[in-house]
Amino acid sequence: EIKNAVLAFFRQQQSKVGPLAGRRALVTAGPTHEPLDPVRYLANRSSGQQGFALAAALADLGADVTLVSGPVSLPPPAGVTYLACETAREMHALAMGSGHFDVAVCTAAVADWRPEHEAGQKIKKTGAPDAAPPIKLVPNPDILAELAAPGPGRPKLVVGFAAETENVIAHATAKRQRKQCDWIVANDVSPQTGIMGGQENQVVLITADSVEAWPRMSKADVANQLAERITVWLSE
Amino acid sequence: EIKNAVLAFFRQQQSKVGPLAGRRALVTAGPTHEPLDPVRYLANRSSGQQGFALAAALADLGADVTLVSGPVSLPPPAGVTYLACETAREMHALAMGSGHFDVAVCTAAVADWRPEHEAGQKIKKTGAPDAAPPIKLVPNPDILAELAAPGPGRPKLVVGFAAETENVIAHATAKRQRKQCDWIVANDVSPQTGIMGGQENQVVLITADSVEAWPRMSKADVANQLAERITVWLSE
Repeated sequence: EIKNAVLAFFRQQQSKVGPLAGRRALVTAGPTHEPLDPVRYLANRSSGQQGFALAAALADLGADVTLVSGPVSLPPPAGVTYLACETAREMHALAMGSGHFDVAVCTAAVADWRPEHEAGQKIKKTGAPDAAPPIKLVPNPDILAELAAPGPGRPKLVVGFAAETENVIAHATAKRQRKQCDWIVANDVSPQTGIMGGQENQVVLITADSVEAWPRMSKADVANQLAERITVWLSE
Repeated sequence: EIKNAVLAFFRQQQSKVGPLAGRRALVTAGPTHEPLDPVRYLANRSSGQQGFALAAALADLGADVTLVSGPVSLPPPAGVTYLACETAREMHALAMGSGHFDVAVCTAAVADWRPEHEAGQKIKKTGAPDAAPPIKLVPNPDILAELAAPGPGRPKLVVGFAAETENVIAHATAKRQRKQCDWIVANDVSPQTGIMGGQENQVVLITADSVEAWPRMSKADVANQLAERITVWLSE
């Protein structure tokens, strides 16, 4: 409680004098949950820690931060506008409907697909062994690609995250080009890395003309270093 | 920390002198997560609160409690054997492989179905709008029905939970007969009730010859009353 009040006060002061004072930053975080019926859903694994840490780091530098997050078990960072959602469509509406941003960082693990129909009542199990309901999936809105698409409202800097389990750099480089975002922060989330849900991260920062492998460090340190890089880029 | 140590000590004393001393109780709790690939899964909504409260209530009465739980954000109750799992198949193995129980209470929201295949690597999104992967579902093991099936190893009392969104009593009564369990605790988990993930519950206890609607109360109170009923039943 006291720590939060101090952080909120510090961030409010920084919003006047910090290097990102006057800048609006959007951070998306967490997974999305895509309902199949009132009790079942399709989900992505994401603790939200990296996105929450980044929102805090940007606020520490004075940015006016909007954090849009799917379902997580984390307290919202102090001094940040926090918008909670559950589905990709809700996250899309909140990200697109919150005004203009100078920088957008999409750390959220948005479900690429959702069940085409959400049943109004719990789908009942029946006795026949082949009675499982077929799930037809349809694509969700692509928040990163929409934010990064050229246009007058585009944030100056759009950063995506790529969680991969193989061919990390190749997949992430292709993703950067396909989505038209400026940077991609790629990481290997294979279970044996312990990164998913863990306290540490090991990322590769991919820009139009560089591929930079960072050492393994805490998610807070990744957030601070990325926030510094964003600050330098915006000031150039 | 201190509260937990006191609770553990109290429960250890009760295990010698409480009304359920010498009785082994199995409680299943939480959801199960059924992986589609390393980052995606199919899940049920369940906070685990009712099951955790019941495990604590049974331990308070002196039972030797094994709590088998899917992924939740709750600390394990003090003085209880806690076994964590993720999938229905893991929960099934832990529930069936932990020896004989006098009473089994299945509060877990076990996924009825799982994706037939778990991809070893993240399934990649491709450009085509109809490129969503088909998900073929296969039935999961039925833990409640296996525990309740007649046989020398059957617990004396097997209690199931039924989370419904419509025709609650009819569905739960049919479930009791189909699963061959002794009691069903039924509740309406429609989103507007606020029960799923909330602090309160409103249940109907269905036995072979009675249907008893309990008033809305805290999940801890539901747990305590149900533990008392179990104690009375086992002592008869």
